[in-house]
Amino acid sequence: MRLATRNNGRRDGQLVVVSADGERCVAVDGVPTMQAALDDWDNVKPLLQAISERLASGPAVGHRLDPASLLAPLPRAYQWVDASGYLSHMERVRRARGAEMPPSARTEPVIYQGLSDRNLAWCDDIPADPSWGADIEGELAVITGEVGPRPTPEEALSQIRLVVLVNDLSLRSLIPVELAKGFGFFHSKPASAFGPFAVTPDELGSGWRDGRAFGRLRIEVNDEVRGDLMTGVDQDFSFTDIICYAARTRRLSSGSIVGAGTVSNRDESRGVACIVEQRTLQTLAGLDERELAPYLQPGDTVTLAFQTEDGRDVLGRIHQKAVLP
Amino acid sequence: MRLATRNNGRRDGQLVVVSADGERCVAVDGVPTMQAALDDWDNVKPLLQAISERLASGPAVGHRLDPASLLAPLPRAYQWVDASGYLSHMERVRRARGAEMPPSARTEPVIYQGLSDRNLAWCDDIPADPSWGADIEGELAVITGEVGPRPTPEEALSQIRLVVLVNDLSLRSLIPVELAKGFGFFHSKPASAFGPFAVTPDELGSGWRDGRAFGRLRIEVNDEVRGDLMTGVDQDFSFTDIICYAARTRRLSSGSIVGAGTVSNRDESRGVACIVEQRTLQTLAGLDERELAPYLQPGDTVTLAFQTEDGRDVLGRIHQKAVLP
Repeated sequence: MRLATRNNGRRDGQLVVVSADGERCVAVDGVPTMQAALDDWDNVKPLLQAISERLASGPAVGHRLDPASLLAPLPRAYQWVDASGYLSHMERVRRARGAEMPPSARTEPVIYQGLSDRNLAWCDDIPADPSWGADIEGELAVITGEVGPRPTPEEALSQIRLVVLVNDLSLRSLIPVELAKGFGFFHSKPASAFGPFAVTPDELGSGWRDGRAFGRLRIEVNDEVRGDLMTGVDQDFSFTDIICYAARTRRLSSGSIVGAGTVSNRDESRGVACIVEQRTLQTLAGLDERELAPYLQPGDTVTLAFQTEDGRDVLGRIHQKAVLP
Repeated sequence: MRLATRNNGRRDGQLVVVSADGERCVAVDGVPTMQAALDDWDNVKPLLQAISERLASGPAVGHRLDPASLLAPLPRAYQWVDASGYLSHMERVRRARGAEMPPSARTEPVIYQGLSDRNLAWCDDIPADPSWGADIEGELAVITGEVGPRPTPEEALSQIRLVVLVNDLSLRSLIPVELAKGFGFFHSKPASAFGPFAVTPDELGSGWRDGRAFGRLRIEVNDEVRGDLMTGVDQDFSFTDIICYAARTRRLSSGSIVGAGTVSNRDESRGVACIVEQRTLQTLAGLDERELAPYLQPGDTVTLAFQTEDGRDVLGRIHQKAVLP
């Protein structure tokens, strides 16, 4: 099942069910927003499924879907939690800024509380002051139902409602000063952008297994391919692991977005999902500081696109332009 | 104007306008929740004011307000940002755990992105495993309208909609391990509790000045007074300062809760708004580790109460019991 949020002039937009080809959609009577669906999932899911089946019954069903009208699936969310699912990313980034890996990095994920009061749409501009070192991070995330404290892995898995594509933006030049203060990211992690479609895990077919979303993530900067990565592969912590870890001392409310961190494969030939990793690999290859791939400058464009294992585009692509803030 | 959120079985509860004596309330036609009011403040404020005046016109207006029915003013919020408004708190806490003050601590606030997907009511239990070192933090916070990026101090001040009382809970024993990982608080900052009433700044009378809320904050643990603090006094960063700093690289959406950090006076005779400061002062006074005030254990109770400069209780008190999680 494929869901999206259409811009209707309201802050939370309008929930729509989308056809398999992404061309048509239908709104849901009595369920105005994505958050409302997540808050009452058990009752709402059958309605959504019935609409989804109706959309599949023939090309005349539903309204034409204008991609430009789509907001982030949750235009604002009550929680965004991001974790170090792919240790290869964390190792490279920390190497780049001369920081150590935490001693427990292999046994439990590192996690942070991110901004979620405003989530960018797939096509929204990226505010990128030239001095900020703005960088992309290609990620997959899940949106949860209510997760009780200290869930079992089965309970955590059963509360994964939807899968989304994320461009978790980072302002690299602001990170060292901020982390040195000891309270984590704030300015250095601005609003993230989300792919237009949120899908139930079954849409990934056989690629949804072991609490991971297997597929391919393609990353382009100014139409130059920077990465063609295998998601799920080299993923040290599954979504289940991350949810269980996050919920050790708390509940996670319905509509919590939980990210598995920047996708990163140990096979360097697959490229990267963020510029900082590219710069690290370039440095290790002997390049000079001035030869490294630059961070985003106003005018640059980025494209993130996910494909399922059998080659389908179900999450929609993210295509953004960097602009002066 | 005094607002509250009544439990009506829905996640966001029901917005009510409350009489000056806190005894009566009236719901608002067409404005179901506190977030809905904040999202459309300019249009909604006159409606709220009219109801407030009606409530003031006579004791027969409105329904009896049952304090036990009140939730946090925002039972879930899109953003909770907390900052080091009172440096005296940060100095004592960092001294307690042997950490340095950041070099910029005096020129800009330290800030973190906290959990807001579930805000505790004034009377909700505090999950406190005996090994967590659960601690209270008595704070004042403001709830904002839409704050654009890089606001002027005047713009920031004009977007302060409401003032609330907060018990920003901390799990002290989890903080050192978590901060050592470099990504800030996560488990160590669980859900905060909020006083029952959210008031427009004018309710503080002359105590609302310089972007600060002046008054007195009384803190009790097991009916023993731990602090009788002067809020606004020794507040190194005002709410205006904190909002301007937070919005340097981003917008803050309507309904963002912005805290000024644990209230702390340099005059030690006023006591403390958290147990860790008490322990620091006890240690400096030569007490032995075993003699220090213990962190919250199941069965302990805490009370936080604010008074305006002219002795009125407008925010309502927080009264919670620590329980096994």
